[in-house]
Amino acid sequence: MNDILVKRKKFLGENIPTFYKKPIHIVKGQGVWLYDSNGKRYLDCYNNVPHVGHCHPKVVEAISKQAATLNTHTRYLHDGIVNYAEMLTSKFSEELNQLIMVCTGSEANDIALRMAQAVTGKSGFIATDNTYHGNTSLVSQLSTRKPPIGGHSKNIRLIPAPESITPLGGSHKTQADIFARNTEKAINELEEEGIGFAGLMLCPIFANEGFPIVLPGFLDQTIEIIKKAGGLIISDEVQSGFGRIGSHWWGHECLGLKPDIVTLGKPMANGHPVGAVITQSDIMKSFQSAFGYFNTFGGNPVSCAAAIATLKVLEDENLIENAQNIGAYALEKLKGISHPFIAEARGNGLFFGLEFINEKGQPAIDFTAKIVEEMRERGVLLNTIGKHRNTLKMRPPMPFSKENANLAIETLADVLSDCPK
Amino acid sequence: MNDILVKRKKFLGENIPTFYKKPIHIVKGQGVWLYDSNGKRYLDCYNNVPHVGHCHPKVVEAISKQAATLNTHTRYLHDGIVNYAEMLTSKFSEELNQLIMVCTGSEANDIALRMAQAVTGKSGFIATDNTYHGNTSLVSQLSTRKPPIGGHSKNIRLIPAPESITPLGGSHKTQADIFARNTEKAINELEEEGIGFAGLMLCPIFANEGFPIVLPGFLDQTIEIIKKAGGLIISDEVQSGFGRIGSHWWGHECLGLKPDIVTLGKPMANGHPVGAVITQSDIMKSFQSAFGYFNTFGGNPVSCAAAIATLKVLEDENLIENAQNIGAYALEKLKGISHPFIAEARGNGLFFGLEFINEKGQPAIDFTAKIVEEMRERGVLLNTIGKHRNTLKMRPPMPFSKENANLAIETLADVLSDCPK
Repeated sequence: MNDILVKRKKFLGENIPTFYKKPIHIVKGQGVWLYDSNGKRYLDCYNNVPHVGHCHPKVVEAISKQAATLNTHTRYLHDGIVNYAEMLTSKFSEELNQLIMVCTGSEANDIALRMAQAVTGKSGFIATDNTYHGNTSLVSQLSTRKPPIGGHSKNIRLIPAPESITPLGGSHKTQADIFARNTEKAINELEEEGIGFAGLMLCPIFANEGFPIVLPGFLDQTIEIIKKAGGLIISDEVQSGFGRIGSHWWGHECLGLKPDIVTLGKPMANGHPVGAVITQSDIMKSFQSAFGYFNTFGGNPVSCAAAIATLKVLEDENLIENAQNIGAYALEKLKGISHPFIAEARGNGLFFGLEFINEKGQPAIDFTAKIVEEMRERGVLLNTIGKHRNTLKMRPPMPFSKENANLAIETLADVLSDCPK
Repeated sequence: MNDILVKRKKFLGENIPTFYKKPIHIVKGQGVWLYDSNGKRYLDCYNNVPHVGHCHPKVVEAISKQAATLNTHTRYLHDGIVNYAEMLTSKFSEELNQLIMVCTGSEANDIALRMAQAVTGKSGFIATDNTYHGNTSLVSQLSTRKPPIGGHSKNIRLIPAPESITPLGGSHKTQADIFARNTEKAINELEEEGIGFAGLMLCPIFANEGFPIVLPGFLDQTIEIIKKAGGLIISDEVQSGFGRIGSHWWGHECLGLKPDIVTLGKPMANGHPVGAVITQSDIMKSFQSAFGYFNTFGGNPVSCAAAIATLKVLEDENLIENAQNIGAYALEKLKGISHPFIAEARGNGLFFGLEFINEKGQPAIDFTAKIVEEMRERGVLLNTIGKHRNTLKMRPPMPFSKENANLAIETLADVLSDCPK
């Protein structure tokens, strides 16, 4: 392990972060389990990329079979991309019926922003002030945690993210009003400065924002303002999509939002580098007229085979229903944990947050970090989220069972009882 | 096949180009061969992505084995990325010793440009006026064939690409002088306008520019001007890298150029979505200090396994030597073809160009397109390249044999003799 750390610094640079103070050398994954080089087993309560479980045999088989048969690009015809397109778009509302396949969520968001530019002829974007939508030069402009080189461009406006209804947040009504007013203000500024407003990009469950509870209707006023201004709404479903939230396939459905563009990434092909942009035919037409996009690896037969297999397993194994049932069970159990720092336990399908506020009413940042390390020691992998990093983030693979939930939450209860502060 | 075409329009949009007037429905690939849904076999003289041959069993095995064992990200430790980094950087000069792994050449170039911004604190870039470096919003600014939405930014200067020494080009000396003077002019403009000069990005074999013959030393004056101005040189080796040119591992070596940053893509993992940026530790440090880059899929264990296997096959099967030997053989044979429109046959390893000028001394654009279609009919896949699209582009997988070269070039000679004009 030390050898790997030394080589990482040597070959990848000095500043390559790992999870945990004592990084884990993982050598094997299976279902919801990860194994390190010492044979220690960890319950994965963090990774959404292995969506249907680490190394799912059906996905592995699909990748292996297709890789042995053909891997080429979409300038030739192949069945994979059209079959997948048909399967995937059937999971969206009728108007979201066309797609571009790419390799990462970042590439998808980079395209989505340009689609909004192509449609509106304007270049101003709004996102929240504590988000992450990817790593390309353009998309990183929307990021607060990884600010772009040279600072944010003047065509980007970052407005305050909603906070959860804890001592740090206001009421649902107040937050919805504030969000709408901030959106309106940003649009007016962009228009007054001659940049113009192209669109709003958001994660519909505000995952990186700390996963606050937002009620259906939260965005209603904001949507009205955006539509009136002629801007587009882009729903980044990299974290919220593919049934993660249990009640719906997509996060925007949960919010009652009808986005113009949806972007997909991480869980889409269970770890194979696949992302996509889904949109309406008129938006696609504007984009394709304005820009001749082609992605060599995007939609290649192996990527499509992996994505198709992932989608099939999700349905065949009823994993969305599982996310809803186990999600509800685990949330109740999480709410049952008692600790003076717990401000709120929240969940949406198989995505959970446990927020800690200390005795002074401040985000318990160090405490939350300590819990993450201690959980790792006891064989449960999770991490932190939110502006203050005072919320535990639990987002396990979708085949998470009742027994897995019991183990994770009982371990957490033990750790918390051993850590009074 | 018609069904696929209908579904492509329906699901992927109206404007999705395919190769050939009669697109090919490919169902199988093996070595240098592709097979369509009717069982017809095509000699692949075009695709550089399946670098060591379509569906090479060693690469397939590596992907299958690793996909069944573990696929996760680099926030945990795994052997694959450091092992690959060690293998790959050993193929570069000593100072190019660190890398970032990504999923596409576009992502690699997007990072490379930001590295130059981080080092210089400036944002102006120079590229040629007939190039393609990828499809992200920033990188597409360097593209002429797919101009960015809203037009080129004022921080991008596109200078005339060298042309080959045909009726369309000047002498080697003249072209080198002109290129250097245009670079100097662009730098001066960028500096005068307060944008500043960050770097030049180029493909060291000027592939999209029409693959003109440029002699070692072509860039010497240009390099001196760039170094004096404090800018970086980025060598985009997506087409020229991994031994394609036979004489060297990398295109920049052929040109006698010592780039500050090298980017890699397409052939790197034989079709698995993998790209990389290679640079010096001080440049990496500047970038990592300025920007917290992380790529979820970049350098994942399966991608690394695919890249390692590809590199091993390249060496074990002496494919670079093969590129040099068969390249030289095929170029001689290509030069032996006689047709009134042939202006120049050129080659560099397993990358060939055959340029056509018509009886009026003009680029024979329609004629070249017709040859491509006729070759496809006769079972040989190739395409066009260059500003005028009057050059045949042949860039077969690396295990291309003498027999393959004979078949391709004899078929081409037949087609040309059947097409007087």
